[in-house]
Amino acid sequence: MNYISIQNIDSLDKWVKSALKIKKNPLKNKKLGKDKTLGMLFFNPSLRTRLSTQKAALNLGMNVMVMNFTNEGWTLEFEDGTIMNQGASEHIREAAEVVSQYCDIIAIRSFAGLIDKEKDNAEMVLSGFLKFATVPIVNMESAVGHPLQSLADAITMEEFKTPHRPKVVLSWAPHPRALPQAVANSFVEMMQKQENMDFVITHPEGYELNPEITKNSKIEYDQNKAFENADFVYVKNWSNYNEYGAVTNMDPNWTVTAEKMALTNNGKFMHCLPVRRNVIVADEVIDSENSIVIQQAHNRTYSAQLVLQKILKKI
Amino acid sequence: MNYISIQNIDSLDKWVKSALKIKKNPLKNKKLGKDKTLGMLFFNPSLRTRLSTQKAALNLGMNVMVMNFTNEGWTLEFEDGTIMNQGASEHIREAAEVVSQYCDIIAIRSFAGLIDKEKDNAEMVLSGFLKFATVPIVNMESAVGHPLQSLADAITMEEFKTPHRPKVVLSWAPHPRALPQAVANSFVEMMQKQENMDFVITHPEGYELNPEITKNSKIEYDQNKAFENADFVYVKNWSNYNEYGAVTNMDPNWTVTAEKMALTNNGKFMHCLPVRRNVIVADEVIDSENSIVIQQAHNRTYSAQLVLQKILKKI
Amino acid sequence: MNYISIQNIDSLDKWVKSALKIKKNPLKNKKLGKDKTLGMLFFNPSLRTRLSTQKAALNLGMNVMVMNFTNEGWTLEFEDGTIMNQGASEHIREAAEVVSQYCDIIAIRSFAGLIDKEKDNAEMVLSGFLKFATVPIVNMESAVGHPLQSLADAITMEEFKTPHRPKVVLSWAPHPRALPQAVANSFVEMMQKQENMDFVITHPEGYELNPEITKNSKIEYDQNKAFENADFVYVKNWSNYNEYGAVTNMDPNWTVTAEKMALTNNGKFMHCLPVRRNVIVADEVIDSENSIVIQQAHNRTYSAQLVLQKILKKI
Repeated sequence: MNYISIQNIDSLDKWVKSALKIKKNPLKNKKLGKDKTLGMLFFNPSLRTRLSTQKAALNLGMNVMVMNFTNEGWTLEFEDGTIMNQGASEHIREAAEVVSQYCDIIAIRSFAGLIDKEKDNAEMVLSGFLKFATVPIVNMESAVGHPLQSLADAITMEEFKTPHRPKVVLSWAPHPRALPQAVANSFVEMMQKQENMDFVITHPEGYELNPEITKNSKIEYDQNKAFENADFVYVKNWSNYNEYGAVTNMDPNWTVTAEKMALTNNGKFMHCLPVRRNVIVADEVIDSENSIVIQQAHNRTYSAQLVLQKILKKI
Repeated sequence: MNYISIQNIDSLDKWVKSALKIKKNPLKNKKLGKDKTLGMLFFNPSLRTRLSTQKAALNLGMNVMVMNFTNEGWTLEFEDGTIMNQGASEHIREAAEVVSQYCDIIAIRSFAGLIDKEKDNAEMVLSGFLKFATVPIVNMESAVGHPLQSLADAITMEEFKTPHRPKVVLSWAPHPRALPQAVANSFVEMMQKQENMDFVITHPEGYELNPEITKNSKIEYDQNKAFENADFVYVKNWSNYNEYGAVTNMDPNWTVTAEKMALTNNGKFMHCLPVRRNVIVADEVIDSENSIVIQQAHNRTYSAQLVLQKILKKI
Repeated sequence: MNYISIQNIDSLDKWVKSALKIKKNPLKNKKLGKDKTLGMLFFNPSLRTRLSTQKAALNLGMNVMVMNFTNEGWTLEFEDGTIMNQGASEHIREAAEVVSQYCDIIAIRSFAGLIDKEKDNAEMVLSGFLKFATVPIVNMESAVGHPLQSLADAITMEEFKTPHRPKVVLSWAPHPRALPQAVANSFVEMMQKQENMDFVITHPEGYELNPEITKNSKIEYDQNKAFENADFVYVKNWSNYNEYGAVTNMDPNWTVTAEKMALTNNGKFMHCLPVRRNVIVADEVIDSENSIVIQQAHNRTYSAQLVLQKILKKI
């Protein structure tokens, strides 16, 4: 069993309920991971993912080995058949199979490069490990998805659920640098598995996500209209998917302010963090009672723990 | 309970005695830290602090998660109300509260920048964590203080105590680069809590430490005179506090030599390390029997363990 | 007891048999390392060594503290008597003795600089730790040797041993950048301890290894001739030892191809990894059934575990 994408979740409802059970008694399965080792491989920076996934593994009694490929290991080659006489010293074929010799589960973080859409969509790093590793793989944010985050988001929404069928909005917000679409993609996929929620995506025209992911999810280009009566507002920047990786819009009118939140149904503010204050969201919103970003971060532990627990039970 | 400064020590005498008890049987409290996690956050290099604090936590049975913010995490913003459209990706408000979700105690190392005195005195990083974290904080050297070091120094002086009331000298020594005042500050504060020792600070005129810290501690500008009959000579460079962060003096006459040590009462040589040999201190002194720098480094483990133990007993 | 070089192995045959016993039941000695701490110090990148040595320590129940000197610690000085007013902040004398205060065993990786032959042959870093540390030292690849690798190679050859007296070839292969001689050196030294194997080294003229290491090992400048009837072909690039550190030959005719392997006696292909595909070895060879590079990497765990186990039994 691997955890690569939200599509690996057979029943979102059951997974969320299991995660909330874990949260009530996180050390209950501390023997499950005894003498099992999680290898955490980072090709990019990480705070929440780094610490919450470690914490989850520790809660399960696992050993953890953390490795930053950026400065601790060798530069990897991913193409097949290359004559490796340039910068890369090691091929993913060897790296993935070798790491499998020392770890029972491998977790990988490798962001989109945002230069070559095809390469990013092919998930070069994650797919490489998936193909050549001989142990289960967990996605700690890849080029295209961040399913540990979106599972934590689903857990958090369950904790704050409304008595009525909620309206959930995914809203783009401006950002000075090009960011991946991974978090937004996984959030969309997760929402598509929510049977009892209404979902709408809002972003400037031209900022459409990959249509193969959004499918028939509703898109509303008027942010104010999208916010009307929303119960949860999930905010996230992503760079342009069509003009791949470009920042073609920095319109501050898309920043989430108290005025905009006033349009919602006393809606909760969500963000995966890190967040740029007063660019993505005004202080007044993220510091308000309705902001549940810390709860989301907290639930990262139980999201990761559920995934590791499910994998450990199968190996 | 936090451990931010020497001022957090209620009774130095009792703390030193407790630490020496821990040293005799370091694994006695190995169950105290069971299923508790120490997060160690580094904004600067570290050898002794990194390893001794980890070792202390392991002796207490804790889990440890180490994170280097310099290359593994996000650049942090510390000012309130900023429009975060520049380099920083995450605000200390979120970072501190998020790390608190995964750790039971957070230990932080963040040196003085030595450019903006006011900012350094405000302990931007440490104060930020102190304000926004929801778990106890331990100072692993901040802009202004290094209280784990000075507690280890007190433990070491107790081990080498003289039958008579000892004379302790803190001596400035030259150094090619600008260094923080943190170690000297905490040593002064620790000495001010020593009821049975005489204390004198010696440094070139103009190199006065912050007078709010030195208070009425005796200052002697003649190094030779200060060394006379000293039982302990604690040597440390610091950059100019008045001309903040400047190196205005590199006079090799302040280097601690055997000749100078001959003025002392068979005095012990102390330094927090790392030390530049033959700049701060001559080989002949640091390699002599009277050098107790390794013992100081060794006691860093018990200094940290005492602090962690006290915190664990309260959470 | 230290593990610095293949010369520290008293009986290669017994060591290999012990390692294979450990492989059958790696957790048998999990109590041996209880409350013991391995400090792993890296002055260079590492994947296999980093993870396999950690895994070995975990199998023995040890605590592990990993430290990258490149970005986490202080720049070290190794010369005696220096006036340390340049880049280095800490002398190996203090660093080694200080780390000994926190660790029961210290493992070190520090490659050859390939600029100053004398300095590299003197093993500046490793010797420094060996001289000034007060706990056992393990070599995780030094300027001159990589004995954990060669022990793993011996274990792997034992697993694939032929019914007849095998012929083993160490073959140089081309590489775009200057690489150390360490792996080749230790392999030669290990082969010199093999009583029941024939051994030949093949490389272009001028690429002779240090004759004090190769001694009377057979050298054959014709690679094809060397490969004839070989049972094991160990391939590795090294830079020129005579024109120290230079890359004076990149002849692609030395790349190991299927055609060359056809000259062998159905020989196994070995390499320590990382390997540059289609430069050192053709895809068709490393991807063939006869490639045992992953098994070598796997045996790194048991090689390290045997060494740690032997040391733990003596402390």
